Amino acid sequence: MLREPQQERSRTTRRRLIEAAMDCIGERGWHGVTVAVIAERAGVSRGAAQHHFPTREDLVAAAVELLGESQITELRTKADGLPTGASRIFGVVEMVLNLYTGPMFRAALQLWAVASSDEQLRGTLVPLEARVGREAHRVTVELLGVDEAKPGVRELVQATLDLARGLGLANLLTDDTRRRRQIVREWAHTLETRLSGTGEA
Amino acid sequence: MLREPQQERSRTTRRRLIEAAMDCIGERGWHGVTVAVIAERAGVSRGAAQHHFPTREDLVAAAVELLGESQITELRTKADGLPTGASRIFGVVEMVLNLYTGPMFRAALQLWAVASSDEQLRGTLVPLEARVGREAHRVTVELLGVDEAKPGVRELVQATLDLARGLGLANLLTDDTRRRRQIVREWAHTLETRLSGTGEA
Repeated sequence: MLREPQQERSRTTRRRLIEAAMDCIGERGWHGVTVAVIAERAGVSRGAAQHHFPTREDLVAAAVELLGESQITELRTKADGLPTGASRIFGVVEMVLNLYTGPMFRAALQLWAVASSDEQLRGTLVPLEARVGREAHRVTVELLGVDEAKPGVRELVQATLDLARGLGLANLLTDDTRRRRQIVREWAHTLETRLSGTGEA
Repeated sequence: MLREPQQERSRTTRRRLIEAAMDCIGERGWHGVTVAVIAERAGVSRGAAQHHFPTREDLVAAAVELLGESQITELRTKADGLPTGASRIFGVVEMVLNLYTGPMFRAALQLWAVASSDEQLRGTLVPLEARVGREAHRVTVELLGVDEAKPGVRELVQATLDLARGLGLANLLTDDTRRRRQIVREWAHTLETRLSGTGEA
């Protein structure tokens, strides 16, 4: 059997630890999770885990970055399959409004809840979330193919992403798929009307 | 000094315990809080606290109900001061989109985060949240003075409340007031356009 090159192995281990961290935090919450618990879940020795990530905070920082990147990649990949023209807005709105309905959002929410009363974790999360948020905004603008120089466009894109996070919350304790589908349709229709308008605000 | 009638005293004690519970949960999270901690914060004996609320779940149920009621009361009271006509929509949107930016939302979020991996707490919260959510929807429709029989109106009101919760999340770790103000303006404009339209969907 060929040995993986060391750099490759190291990257695989990091990724496994990050994924295990988000799984564990999503299931048990921040307080139920230690680096040792995460290492066990990932099938990695505690020493190796601590070599990559000395503290839970380091793991969380890496996880938030990975999560942000994979959301952006997912958006771009799916967007490649979308039609051009009017139905494109519906497709993009559908993707964006479904962005926070998975298990990763559940894990992120655990972190936000804890960070709201934990100075250290807040210090780690705030700059990361700002960067991930800006990137999600930039990609949404690009996929919608709209011009942010027009009055109101920037705020409508922001509102779309805030609405997406609100829909993530609504989907946390119960399956909100059916209700969300109606909202997607109505919001796509609204954006179409507003974005194709004269841009008056 | 006049003695409070017993029923009155009992109501005051309940209210004090509920408020202390939400304060404690907002500050320390669900895991850092016991009925004993809450009783101390409320200045109530542990025995009296347990007489009113045998478990933390009982306290949480009462808190979510009180929170829902006080939000509705706040909406109605503020709405009395709003003008009629076009600027009314702006006023209502501003109130609704600011609804989840206070310390109570922080406490509620702690509960949701925990409930997403705690069967018992979820069982307590889901029916309560559904009731509080329906009531918030009903009042928003009433304050906007819109007709839900028109296509799309129901979904736009739902989206407004989901957006409000998303904006609550965005305000959790940093002060998001300035950005939110722009979104309020744009959302009000959007609702005005869509709700005063012909109702095509």
